[in-house]
Amino acid sequence: MTAPSEPTATATPTHGPTHWVLSLSCPDRPGIVAAVAGLLASHGGNITESQQFGDPLSGLFFMRVQVEATAPEATLRAALDALGAEFSMTWRLDVAGRRMRTLVMVSTAAHCLHDLLFRQQSEGLPVDIVAVVSNHTALEDVAGFYGIPFHHVPVTRDTKTDAEARLLGLVEELDVELVVLARYMQILSDDLCRTLSGRVINIHHSFLPSFKGARPYAQAHDRGVKLIGATAHYVTGDLDEGPIIEQDVERVDHSKKVEDLVALGQDVERRALARAVRWHAEHRVLLDGHRTIVFR
Amino acid sequence: MTAPSEPTATATPTHGPTHWVLSLSCPDRPGIVAAVAGLLASHGGNITESQQFGDPLSGLFFMRVQVEATAPEATLRAALDALGAEFSMTWRLDVAGRRMRTLVMVSTAAHCLHDLLFRQQSEGLPVDIVAVVSNHTALEDVAGFYGIPFHHVPVTRDTKTDAEARLLGLVEELDVELVVLARYMQILSDDLCRTLSGRVINIHHSFLPSFKGARPYAQAHDRGVKLIGATAHYVTGDLDEGPIIEQDVERVDHSKKVEDLVALGQDVERRALARAVRWHAEHRVLLDGHRTIVFR
Amino acid sequence: MTAPSEPTATATPTHGPTHWVLSLSCPDRPGIVAAVAGLLASHGGNITESQQFGDPLSGLFFMRVQVEATAPEATLRAALDALGAEFSMTWRLDVAGRRMRTLVMVSTAAHCLHDLLFRQQSEGLPVDIVAVVSNHTALEDVAGFYGIPFHHVPVTRDTKTDAEARLLGLVEELDVELVVLARYMQILSDDLCRTLSGRVINIHHSFLPSFKGARPYAQAHDRGVKLIGATAHYVTGDLDEGPIIEQDVERVDHSKKVEDLVALGQDVERRALARAVRWHAEHRVLLDGHRTIVFR
Amino acid sequence: MTAPSEPTATATPTHGPTHWVLSLSCPDRPGIVAAVAGLLASHGGNITESQQFGDPLSGLFFMRVQVEATAPEATLRAALDALGAEFSMTWRLDVAGRRMRTLVMVSTAAHCLHDLLFRQQSEGLPVDIVAVVSNHTALEDVAGFYGIPFHHVPVTRDTKTDAEARLLGLVEELDVELVVLARYMQILSDDLCRTLSGRVINIHHSFLPSFKGARPYAQAHDRGVKLIGATAHYVTGDLDEGPIIEQDVERVDHSKKVEDLVALGQDVERRALARAVRWHAEHRVLLDGHRTIVFR
Repeated sequence: MTAPSEPTATATPTHGPTHWVLSLSCPDRPGIVAAVAGLLASHGGNITESQQFGDPLSGLFFMRVQVEATAPEATLRAALDALGAEFSMTWRLDVAGRRMRTLVMVSTAAHCLHDLLFRQQSEGLPVDIVAVVSNHTALEDVAGFYGIPFHHVPVTRDTKTDAEARLLGLVEELDVELVVLARYMQILSDDLCRTLSGRVINIHHSFLPSFKGARPYAQAHDRGVKLIGATAHYVTGDLDEGPIIEQDVERVDHSKKVEDLVALGQDVERRALARAVRWHAEHRVLLDGHRTIVFR
Repeated sequence: MTAPSEPTATATPTHGPTHWVLSLSCPDRPGIVAAVAGLLASHGGNITESQQFGDPLSGLFFMRVQVEATAPEATLRAALDALGAEFSMTWRLDVAGRRMRTLVMVSTAAHCLHDLLFRQQSEGLPVDIVAVVSNHTALEDVAGFYGIPFHHVPVTRDTKTDAEARLLGLVEELDVELVVLARYMQILSDDLCRTLSGRVINIHHSFLPSFKGARPYAQAHDRGVKLIGATAHYVTGDLDEGPIIEQDVERVDHSKKVEDLVALGQDVERRALARAVRWHAEHRVLLDGHRTIVFR
Repeated sequence: MTAPSEPTATATPTHGPTHWVLSLSCPDRPGIVAAVAGLLASHGGNITESQQFGDPLSGLFFMRVQVEATAPEATLRAALDALGAEFSMTWRLDVAGRRMRTLVMVSTAAHCLHDLLFRQQSEGLPVDIVAVVSNHTALEDVAGFYGIPFHHVPVTRDTKTDAEARLLGLVEELDVELVVLARYMQILSDDLCRTLSGRVINIHHSFLPSFKGARPYAQAHDRGVKLIGATAHYVTGDLDEGPIIEQDVERVDHSKKVEDLVALGQDVERRALARAVRWHAEHRVLLDGHRTIVFR
Repeated sequence: MTAPSEPTATATPTHGPTHWVLSLSCPDRPGIVAAVAGLLASHGGNITESQQFGDPLSGLFFMRVQVEATAPEATLRAALDALGAEFSMTWRLDVAGRRMRTLVMVSTAAHCLHDLLFRQQSEGLPVDIVAVVSNHTALEDVAGFYGIPFHHVPVTRDTKTDAEARLLGLVEELDVELVVLARYMQILSDDLCRTLSGRVINIHHSFLPSFKGARPYAQAHDRGVKLIGATAHYVTGDLDEGPIIEQDVERVDHSKKVEDLVALGQDVERRALARAVRWHAEHRVLLDGHRTIVFR
C-alpha cells in the first residue's frame, strides 16, 4: 500500500457533502469494485462518475471514482488506508475540481505558456499556476500580465546541477504538485526525472515518420509529410519516450513552408498539452508501466 | 424492474468462467455500484471493464460492466432480478462478444450495406446479419455474395401496412435484435417505431447549417459549406430526430461538385453507422430520455 | 471593372523585385489565364503560386496569383486596369505578406481576442490589429497587454446608431480594412453590413442539428450531440447566414456538462476564426455570390 | 522534354470540346504560366480549374490545368511538344475523368481491395481495375464478385524473379498504368521499383513514434499510443520511404486491444489509400524529388 506522497487537498469544511475524486490501481483480482463501492456506500457516498479498466497484460486494475460523501475526510482516509493495505493498492483522494498547484517551465517560445495561462483564467483548466520558471527572460512579461511570479534560472553546462537544485527548491517551497515543460528546451537530469517521476509533463512535436536530430520541422518539410503532430507525455530519464498521455495532428500540404509548419505545430502542441494537463489535474491519467490509462 | 424483452444470449456451457457484459440504468441513489459489484463478487465475478455515469439532469444512473464469472447463468439472472426490483433497475445481461442478430434494410445505395457486411466478415463487427430487406432488388447480389438471405419487400402507399407487417414477421421469425436502416429511403410508421423502439438505428446526412427538404447535398453545395457530416441515431416517430449515437464529419471545399459531396458523404455515413452499430451490439449505448450515454 | 475601394498596399521601394498577390474574379470565358499570365510575364513577373477556379453554376472565374515582379507598381496597376476593363474583372493587388489593418470587436469573452493578438505577435498572422472596440470594458487590459488601443463604445437600443457611427469613424480614421467580430454579442445594422460588405468576419457556434434561440450549448447538451462546431463567415444583413469561410468541429460525449461544451466550443471557435482571418488577410477568400472560394 | 511513356488516353471523337487535364513540371522561370495559358487559349481552350506551385527549394515549377478545348488532340500534342522542348518540361495530357487502368496486388487482407473495388463501382473512383494479382488465393472470390480477373502468382525466394517477370508481363499485356499494393506483403525488387517508378502506390501503417520490425500494432499497443495512422506513398527501392501522397490517423485509447488497433488501422489504411489512388488517377500528384505536390 502506498499513500500518495504528493500534497493532497483538504476539503473545505462545510455542512453538505464533499465531492471527491478517488483514483487507484492494484493487482487485479475479483472483488475490488465491490470493496471500493461498498466502502464508499458505507460512508454515505453517492458515486456520480466512475470508470474501471483491467489490463490483461500487466495484470493491474485501475479505477477512478467521483463520489459525493458526507463522512469526514479523516474517516474516509482511514478506511481507504485499510482497504489499500488489503488490496496492495496505490490510491489518491482529492477534492473534485481542486486546482492543482503547477509550475510551468519555458524557454523562449510563448505559445504553450500563453495557452495554459489563458485556459487557467478563462476556461476552467483546474490548475493553479504558482510559478513560471525559465532559463531566459523573454517570457517574463507574459507571466507578469497574468500576475504569476517569474523565476529566471539560467542553465549552462556548469550550473545545471545548481539550476535543478533551485527548481527542486521551488517545487518544495511552493508545494508544487505538477511541473509542465511548456517548450522548455533543456533536458532534465536522470536524478531530477526520478525525483519528480509521474509529476512532469512534456510536450514534444512528432511526425510520421519520426525524425531524429536537429530541425525536425525542416526534416518533415523536406520529406513532404502530410500531417504534423504533437505528443504530450510524462518525462522519464529516456527523453521523449515517457508514457504518452495525449497525441494530436494537424493536416499540412506541399505549399507550407518550414515556418508555416512550425506555426501549425505550435497550434497542435498547445492543444495536446492543454488536454494532458487537464486530464492529469483531474486525476484521469494513471500509470500502467510505460503506458497510461486515461479515463477521459 | 424491467427485464429486457429482446432475445438474449445463453452462454455456451463450458467448465471455465463466462465473460459477461451487464448494462443497466436506474434512478440514481447511493449504493448502486456497491450493490452491483457486491452481487458480482459474491458470484465469483472478476470485473474486467466498467463504466458508470450519473446524469444530474435526468436523475438516472447508468452502468456497463464486463465481468468474468463462474456462477451458472440462471443463478446470476435470479440475483439480478432481485437486485433490479430493489433499485427499479432496467438491466440486460449478455455474453461478451456475442454477435447480435441483425436485419439490414436498404433501398438502392450500396455503401453502408457493403461496409457492414465486410466489417462483419473481416473486422470483427459483432453482428450476425441474418437478413437483408429492401424495397428494391438492386442490392440482391451484394447480399448473395456474403451468403445473406435477401428479402424483396416492395413498398407503395397502398402496401405500406402489409410491408411493415412482413418486416415485423421477419423480425420475430428470425429472432432479430437490431434493425439497421442502411440508407433505407422509406419512413417507418409511428406504430412500427414504437414496437421496435431502441432497436432501430438509422444513418442520416447532416450539415452545418442544417438543410430541410429534398436534395440536401445540392443545398449544402449551394451554400458553400466546408464540412459535411453524418449522424447515426435511434429511430423514433420523429424521423431524423431520435437519440444521437454517433456523428462524424468530412472536410470539403469549393472545388467539390454535388456528386463529390455525395461520395464523401457516403464515406462519412458508413463510418458513423459502423461505429454506432458496433457500440449498440456491444451494449455500450444506453438511453437517457432522448439522449444517449455511450460507454466507448 | 471595379477597382477595390479598400485601402491597398504600396510596396516599399527597393531595387529588387516586389512579391505581389493578385486576386481577381470575372465572368468565365476562354483566355483569362493567358491574358493575366501574359500581362505579368510582360512586366517581368515570375509566378510563384497560383490557383484558379471556374464555377459552372455562377459562370464566374476566380484566380489568385503570387508573383515576383520588377515593374513599378503604377505601371502594373495601369496594365491591370486595362485588362480588368476588357474582362469585366474585379481585381485587387497587394504586397504579399503585408499585414492587413484590422479592428477587432468584442464583448466580454476573451478567447478569440487573446488568440488573435497572440497569433499576430508570435505566429505570423498577417494582420495589424489597430484597435479593439468593445461595448464592455472587461477586455481593456488584454488589449493593453499587447499595446493595442482600446475603445469603449457602449451600445443601448437608443445609442446604437451613434455607436455604429463611431465605429465607422474609427474604420475611416484608422484606415481599417478588416473588422473581426470576435464574439461581439451585438447585431450590426443592415446599413452597416452593406457599408462594410465583404470586410466583416464573424465567428458563430454551430451544431448538428442546428439550434435556434438562446442558450444553444444548453440545447446541444440536452440533445446529446456528439460534435460541436464553429463557423467563421462574412457578415451580411442576414445574421449567421453570410458566406461561410471556415468550419471546424470538436468531439464531445455524454459526460460533458454545458460549461464543458462552452469551453470546448471556445477552442474550436478561436481555431476556425484564426484560419478565416489568415485566409482573408492573405487574399485567399473570394466571394462567389453567397459562397466563398478559398484558395488555401 | 520528356513525353510520358505510359499509355495515355485518346479522346472520344465528338463534335463538342474535349475536357482535358494537363499536368506538367519544369525548371521555374518567368513566363511559364503565360506560355501554357496562351497555348491553350490559342487552341480554343477554356480553363476550368488550375493550380500552380513553384518550389523555392528544388527550383521546379508544377502545374495542373483542366481545360475544355476544341482543337484536335494531335494538334494540341504537337504544340505541347514544342512548348515542352522550350521549357525543358515534363508534361502529360489526358482526358479528364478517364479511368486509369489499374492492377491491384494483395496477399490475404481484404479491406483495401474491397474498398477500391467498391469505390470504383459505386463512388466514381476513376480507375479501371483490370486485374487482381495475389501470392495467395484467399481473395479470389472478392475479385470474382466484381468480375475482375484474378491471377495467382505465388512467390518464394526461388521464384521471386519469375513472379516479378509475370507481373511485368501482365502490366504490359494489360496496358496497366498504375499498380496498387493493397496490403501486398512482399517486397518488390529494386529493379522492379525502378521499372515502374512513379506508378506503384503502397499503403503502410504508421505510428507516432514509429516502430520498426515485426508486429508494429503490438508495439504500438505496448507503448500506449493514442493515434494510429497510415501512409500512402509511391514505392521506391527504399521500402516504406518513398514519396508520401497521403496520411491519416485514427484516435485510440488504452481500452483497445491489439486486434482492435488492427481493425481501426484497416479503416484508416483503406481511407488513405483510396484518396491517394484517386488523386494519382486524376493526375493531381506530381513528383518533386522525394516529395509530392498534391493539387487536391
